[in-house]
Amino acid sequence: MDFAPLLRVSTRNMASSAPKLVAVAESRRFMIDCFKAVKVPQAHAEAQADLLVAADHRGHFSHGMNRLEMYINDLAINCTDGGAVPKILKETPATAWVDGLNGLGAVVGNYCMDLAIKKAKTVGVGWVCAKGSNHYGMAGWYAIRAMEQGLVGMSMTNTSPLMAPTRAKEAALGTNPLSLGAPATNGDKFLLDMATTAVAVGKIEIQRRKGAGLPDGWAQDPNGNITNDAELGFSTGCLMPLGGSELTSGYKGFGLGAMVDILSGVMSGANYSTQVRKWTHAGADSAADLGQVFIAVDPNCFAPNFEERMTDFNARLRGVKPTDPSKPVLLPGDKESQNMASVDAAGGIQYLENQLNTCASLAEKLNIKPLAFN
Amino acid sequence: MDFAPLLRVSTRNMASSAPKLVAVAESRRFMIDCFKAVKVPQAHAEAQADLLVAADHRGHFSHGMNRLEMYINDLAINCTDGGAVPKILKETPATAWVDGLNGLGAVVGNYCMDLAIKKAKTVGVGWVCAKGSNHYGMAGWYAIRAMEQGLVGMSMTNTSPLMAPTRAKEAALGTNPLSLGAPATNGDKFLLDMATTAVAVGKIEIQRRKGAGLPDGWAQDPNGNITNDAELGFSTGCLMPLGGSELTSGYKGFGLGAMVDILSGVMSGANYSTQVRKWTHAGADSAADLGQVFIAVDPNCFAPNFEERMTDFNARLRGVKPTDPSKPVLLPGDKESQNMASVDAAGGIQYLENQLNTCASLAEKLNIKPLAFN
Repeated sequence: MDFAPLLRVSTRNMASSAPKLVAVAESRRFMIDCFKAVKVPQAHAEAQADLLVAADHRGHFSHGMNRLEMYINDLAINCTDGGAVPKILKETPATAWVDGLNGLGAVVGNYCMDLAIKKAKTVGVGWVCAKGSNHYGMAGWYAIRAMEQGLVGMSMTNTSPLMAPTRAKEAALGTNPLSLGAPATNGDKFLLDMATTAVAVGKIEIQRRKGAGLPDGWAQDPNGNITNDAELGFSTGCLMPLGGSELTSGYKGFGLGAMVDILSGVMSGANYSTQVRKWTHAGADSAADLGQVFIAVDPNCFAPNFEERMTDFNARLRGVKPTDPSKPVLLPGDKESQNMASVDAAGGIQYLENQLNTCASLAEKLNIKPLAFN
Repeated sequence: MDFAPLLRVSTRNMASSAPKLVAVAESRRFMIDCFKAVKVPQAHAEAQADLLVAADHRGHFSHGMNRLEMYINDLAINCTDGGAVPKILKETPATAWVDGLNGLGAVVGNYCMDLAIKKAKTVGVGWVCAKGSNHYGMAGWYAIRAMEQGLVGMSMTNTSPLMAPTRAKEAALGTNPLSLGAPATNGDKFLLDMATTAVAVGKIEIQRRKGAGLPDGWAQDPNGNITNDAELGFSTGCLMPLGGSELTSGYKGFGLGAMVDILSGVMSGANYSTQVRKWTHAGADSAADLGQVFIAVDPNCFAPNFEERMTDFNARLRGVKPTDPSKPVLLPGDKESQNMASVDAAGGIQYLENQLNTCASLAEKLNIKPLAFN
């Protein structure tokens, strides 16, 4: 038998251009070690690492390890309290008002969603608002937590100002994401997790790095006009709301972003709109005091067989005639499920080189075991 | 004294080109009479007329008297049951599942929102899902009902298929609107009421009548491509989701439209997605069985002084530096408040000529007192 072709392939895979894959468990281990190095208790470090690695597993790198350095900075200067345990300030059978006490986003978020789930299982709905929170990662994480209990879950958070209201030339709302998860049968689901801006800053950064332009409706210049210049769009920091300009109904995206801030920031008594601090890689100068809302609803309080109908609903939408037969309709969450499957098949997550460099210097700075590759 | 100039003005006002204004009370009287003529009980006729005239008062003509003929057609052929009283099928302290029994949209909607309000006042949240409903007018109506009680109100409904999912060339969701109302101090408020498509069909009809084109992102042609041809966009009947094409994040608008259908149609056990019938001026061939959701939340369950913070939130957004100083930032609901003030100052609503013609023939057909002008 001739093994030459197989060996050649194998050699090629081991060349320096071969992807360096990081197992999901190893990425989690590394992040836990980082958090523990800045005195975060084990349980909190695990909660935060679970959240971040889940984003990388799904292909949402902007909300994964990419954020690690910022969290570590905030923790190192005591701007976030890694050991804080959230506290209930007010409660009814269906609601709770929680103070996150400046704890880690995942700690506050998991606490609040678990409380909402408990209430939903008792009276059908749980509606929990948190103030005193920090950046809580991907909004979909908390919807997934409710879905795992057979419930419909929703979550929203306000964020640092980046979106210019329709007709304005300054940012006054964040990318303010909202999520909704609804379980179907056999593990299928509907999982919406979206910013209320047209795009995230990350997409503008990518166009800028490529030296490419921006489509209409993504970003504004300092005078408040649409810009196609990625450099200018990035430096101005005024994203446009979902819908783009007023002509294409950008005021609806603006309205949605404001809705998210009302339900998360205003209702909880946290910072809102232009009160929210800027958040940069350099660490922050004050506590974020972000507001968040966590909603769980028990579909069994309404028509029976919700999950079966969700399966039919999903099938109807995925089965609509596509414009291009090679690109079938995708439901929110489908791309992420495909990405998880690819990572599992490949045996690990492929991080960008500059992310790996950041990890290497973090490991050195914090004196922890560097990230290992498969 | 010379009255000549005054007389000339007065003569000019009485000329055939002068606007024919209909007092709000008279518009309401006319609609009540129409509903009673097709055997709708007095209280239900009043509820439905209140809803429709409120839309005209706010300048949303598409959701006002414009719909009267369609409602009357549905009632005349017993496709809607004008006398039906909604029934609670299942209940917890925070939730209710309601069967609208094919009653009028306003009757079902008011019943459900009042139930949600009662629950919110007891346990902080009321979440009511209705099946067996009909077209329920402007979604904001029900949010206003909650706001009048000092609560935050939300409502959503599914509608007849008109939106093509991203990547599809067929419609599989309706314009599926959502509303959120939050009260501020001194009668100020935030009132979002938006379809999850980029625009409503009415806007395409207007461009078509003007012989004008469509901006990118409003509508598709039969092959699923963006069209700028208003005639083709109208005849195809495939609106694009908020956000337009995939490049400008139309999949988010698609996700929002699907979210509305899950919370209204799927959760309530009503028709959803492509199950929902087409609704035309000719009357329908079957019961609509639409699904709707009504949510009321008591902000006092969370941080105190919600209305004061809403006033500050509104001021921050209205006060952001405008791109064009002559066009300050408007909040959702501001245009509608301005329109109500204009109607009140003018002494009546100015309907389009073809709307008045429809009213005249309705009056004749139903043998009721024609619409009177101011």
